[in-house]
Amino acid sequence: MELFFADRIDGGFCFLPEEEAAHCVRVLRHRVGDAIDVIDGAGTLYRCCLTDSSPKGAQARILETVPGWGGHPYRLTMAVCPTKNNDRYEWFVEKAVEVGVDRIVPVIGEHSERRVYKPERSRRIALSAAKQSLKAAIPSVEEPVSVADFIRGCTASLKLIAYCFEEETAPRRSVAEVLRSCSGDDIAILIGPEGDFSPEEARLALSAGFVPVHLGPSRLRTETAAITAVESVYFHYCL
Amino acid sequence: MELFFADRIDGGFCFLPEEEAAHCVRVLRHRVGDAIDVIDGAGTLYRCCLTDSSPKGAQARILETVPGWGGHPYRLTMAVCPTKNNDRYEWFVEKAVEVGVDRIVPVIGEHSERRVYKPERSRRIALSAAKQSLKAAIPSVEEPVSVADFIRGCTASLKLIAYCFEEETAPRRSVAEVLRSCSGDDIAILIGPEGDFSPEEARLALSAGFVPVHLGPSRLRTETAAITAVESVYFHYCL
Repeated sequence: MELFFADRIDGGFCFLPEEEAAHCVRVLRHRVGDAIDVIDGAGTLYRCCLTDSSPKGAQARILETVPGWGGHPYRLTMAVCPTKNNDRYEWFVEKAVEVGVDRIVPVIGEHSERRVYKPERSRRIALSAAKQSLKAAIPSVEEPVSVADFIRGCTASLKLIAYCFEEETAPRRSVAEVLRSCSGDDIAILIGPEGDFSPEEARLALSAGFVPVHLGPSRLRTETAAITAVESVYFHYCL
Repeated sequence: MELFFADRIDGGFCFLPEEEAAHCVRVLRHRVGDAIDVIDGAGTLYRCCLTDSSPKGAQARILETVPGWGGHPYRLTMAVCPTKNNDRYEWFVEKAVEVGVDRIVPVIGEHSERRVYKPERSRRIALSAAKQSLKAAIPSVEEPVSVADFIRGCTASLKLIAYCFEEETAPRRSVAEVLRSCSGDDIAILIGPEGDFSPEEARLALSAGFVPVHLGPSRLRTETAAITAVESVYFHYCL
């Protein structure tokens, strides 16, 4: 099964942007009349019939609409500090989309070595991974914000922060245990940089209602901690 | 904390091979008399004092021996078909070692596109990931074998196979549910190639006592399925 992304859906038709149209008609050689499957990136699948096979902007008539296609029964925001090595972050983006995430927010911490992050490449990876793993919703990769600003603005019903040091006032519990004991399915998880959060960032998070969690005894790199956190939510809701 | 790998331990001394010795004395500039931490790759940590700082073959006197250091409370064999793109397999090796695995067996299935796998690079990645994630045991990466040979020779107490199609005679259960309902902590998990197992391979596995499992509703690439399976064992035993 091959999915195409439409950037405009209007009047019973899906309109493919140039790159998607070229892939559809030049690479896969679809012709007018062929059945194709189109996603809107927001969670809906459209079963369509190709009506215009221009490689600059194909269009397809909608035959059937399937909302919530390929979705998951939770809403997950991963706020993860960019890694020194960009490939490692992009790998995380791909894997998180495959497993199931909704928003990825690159956050810059006080100890972050990488203080600039351009989300364009990660957005393309998210689109490609969503299509490859048959999801109609393409997770967003947002513009970077500071850890402190993310903490202040986070409105998820369950907010978790994973860090390595033990704050005396707030012992960490395992992420699996916290997921089991809390209700709500709108979750945000904050993962720090290679140098961990600063004690001030941890305290700010705790005062904003973030629950301190650990990801088990293994010492994980930033991107491995991040995917382990995604898997913990996926297992809790889906397995 | 920095770990060094010793390929020989004898008479109260650890002997570092050339690459490790050069890293220890040339890059990190350790001198005779410095305290260093050495692993044997089989699960034991040695706290040592550097006694010979030759970059061609440093040696260190053992002060303290810590068996089972950085270990996990299960034994996990991951038998995973090599991916078309080698980077994806090597990424899986690194992540599996960080999270916790004991043996990685590249298996060649009837539908495998990649039919040759050279384990040398993956072994170096496993060594590096074990040191980086503070584990004294370096998981083995074995020579490739056929899926059928792996099935016939597998002696684990709990044997799981993840495939995508539903064998009519054996409905798949979730990997988490199977782990919860079975005892034993010597586990082998078989993950197929991009083209899945052949029906004959699946039947052979079932007749050899493999339990068919699924990894949830998401459609995962081979290497993502493999790391998801590792995470499921890690969560079951450690979180």
